[in-house]
Amino acid sequence: MTVIGADLGGTKLSTALFHPDGGMEHRETVALEGRRNAQIGSLVVSRILHLAALSREPVTAVGVTVPGISRPDGTVWAPNLEGWTEYPLLAELRDALAPDIRVTVESDRACYILGETWRGAARGCRNAVFIAVGTGLGAGILADGRIIRGAGGVAGSIGWLSMERPWKRAYSHSGSFEHHASGEGIARSARRLILKNSAYSGVLREKGAERITARDVFAAYDHHDPVAITVLDRCVRFWGMAAADFVSIFNPEVIVFGGGVFGPAVRFLDRIRDEAALWAQPVSMQQVRFVPSALGEDAGLIGAGKLALGE
Amino acid sequence: MTVIGADLGGTKLSTALFHPDGGMEHRETVALEGRRNAQIGSLVVSRILHLAALSREPVTAVGVTVPGISRPDGTVWAPNLEGWTEYPLLAELRDALAPDIRVTVESDRACYILGETWRGAARGCRNAVFIAVGTGLGAGILADGRIIRGAGGVAGSIGWLSMERPWKRAYSHSGSFEHHASGEGIARSARRLILKNSAYSGVLREKGAERITARDVFAAYDHHDPVAITVLDRCVRFWGMAAADFVSIFNPEVIVFGGGVFGPAVRFLDRIRDEAALWAQPVSMQQVRFVPSALGEDAGLIGAGKLALGE
Repeated sequence: MTVIGADLGGTKLSTALFHPDGGMEHRETVALEGRRNAQIGSLVVSRILHLAALSREPVTAVGVTVPGISRPDGTVWAPNLEGWTEYPLLAELRDALAPDIRVTVESDRACYILGETWRGAARGCRNAVFIAVGTGLGAGILADGRIIRGAGGVAGSIGWLSMERPWKRAYSHSGSFEHHASGEGIARSARRLILKNSAYSGVLREKGAERITARDVFAAYDHHDPVAITVLDRCVRFWGMAAADFVSIFNPEVIVFGGGVFGPAVRFLDRIRDEAALWAQPVSMQQVRFVPSALGEDAGLIGAGKLALGE
Repeated sequence: MTVIGADLGGTKLSTALFHPDGGMEHRETVALEGRRNAQIGSLVVSRILHLAALSREPVTAVGVTVPGISRPDGTVWAPNLEGWTEYPLLAELRDALAPDIRVTVESDRACYILGETWRGAARGCRNAVFIAVGTGLGAGILADGRIIRGAGGVAGSIGWLSMERPWKRAYSHSGSFEHHASGEGIARSARRLILKNSAYSGVLREKGAERITARDVFAAYDHHDPVAITVLDRCVRFWGMAAADFVSIFNPEVIVFGGGVFGPAVRFLDRIRDEAALWAQPVSMQQVRFVPSALGEDAGLIGAGKLALGE
């Protein structure tokens, strides 16, 4: 059996052939290069047909991960792809492929945890959560081996977890957890602290408040910068509290931390675990491991392969 | 097809025959009357055998709900049943029943949502949450029609949801959400406020701080008592935030509020929804209904019947 996995991101598309033993062949990445709307759909279809032609065995299934939401009706919402608010990706793929090829489209966060349970840091686990911290936040959740999708495909929107009463208007754009503890939130919190504190003269001031990124804040933390310490210590607490909530709600075997911010935030994993242990259901807390992603940038592509092979 | 449902509570056992169309026959309730340890197991077995003998058709399956945790190995932890820390209920039932009878044991909170989706307020829903607010807190969760159990059967322990930084030692007994927003938490919060405020001379003072129950606090709220208003307004916010987190994580069709406190807290359902709408993922929030339990005290028994028939 051979299947195709495709990982469509905001700027590029990766594809590969997969075998049930986990073997990956003909891995290729192409840049989207300004493509939009149906041009992106055409690229996905053409790369998949190209790969299918390279396969020595007939391809039996295709799995595609998208940077957004895959709805039950097969349409996709992907905020970073122009024109993709209700894009009919599933229908396009089915039209282009032989009718006996099974096609599945899934959100990136769901594929991350599929990838990690198949070939990564959560190998063999049936109850597992991937907490993705990048520019934004999202969670991929497997319960008893099955992806949690929700009634409209929007499950795992953890950027909207309620953190810190009272509610503030600033949370209405992307949620209170994302406001504080995403890559964008880290940069914004640091900028705001610097602008409020005219006495501050640390490394982030030199950079210029408007240009600060999350990566700069992590670098400043290494130099004991007080702004970076304030911002990231609060993130550690929020990440720990959110992880604790997942432990209490799902009783998972493992929580995998990934996305661009883990990376540099991996150094905090023990402290995140200590914070979570304060809050979480204690029996469940004993049963869970906190680990960093083992697949990194490949998590989505490998998860798409597993999606094609069957959850 | 006929099956048996049994709802084992902290003080009584209810049993009934169920048919696939939802029909219920021979509903009976017996008090536990001081039984403990294996005496309780014997009572469950004997009432089930008694019912099976009453059935006109052969009984094909038995579902039992327990007031605690049903572990994957078939043992039960039930804090209000003396000696039930690792009680081998599943093995006892299998020993007593014919080998072709399928036996399932499940936590009460899981059976509440099974009951409500079968014959109650969430009829026909496949993504649904039951938030049970009684002396303690718990959640029963169905995702795509399947119960969320977790690796050790401890899923849905929402008493431990993280509410309000920083963590306090008082949370270590039963979790921060349960500390504030359970029946016991409501009574304790009111007692503490009265003891702290010597100028207070409202209706709860007359009752005597030590003897205040959650029910008294709800009654005082109706008389515009300031202590009751402070305590319950905070609960409304916490219930709304927790419901919002369930909306963002699960994207469910419905959240059912039940347990002894809903009941009197049903009057707050619109305000809980308003609070949740501030925090939750907005698309998911549009897709969810907030409703009170329709089955009340029968939710567990009817859910046990559905458990026997198959999720």
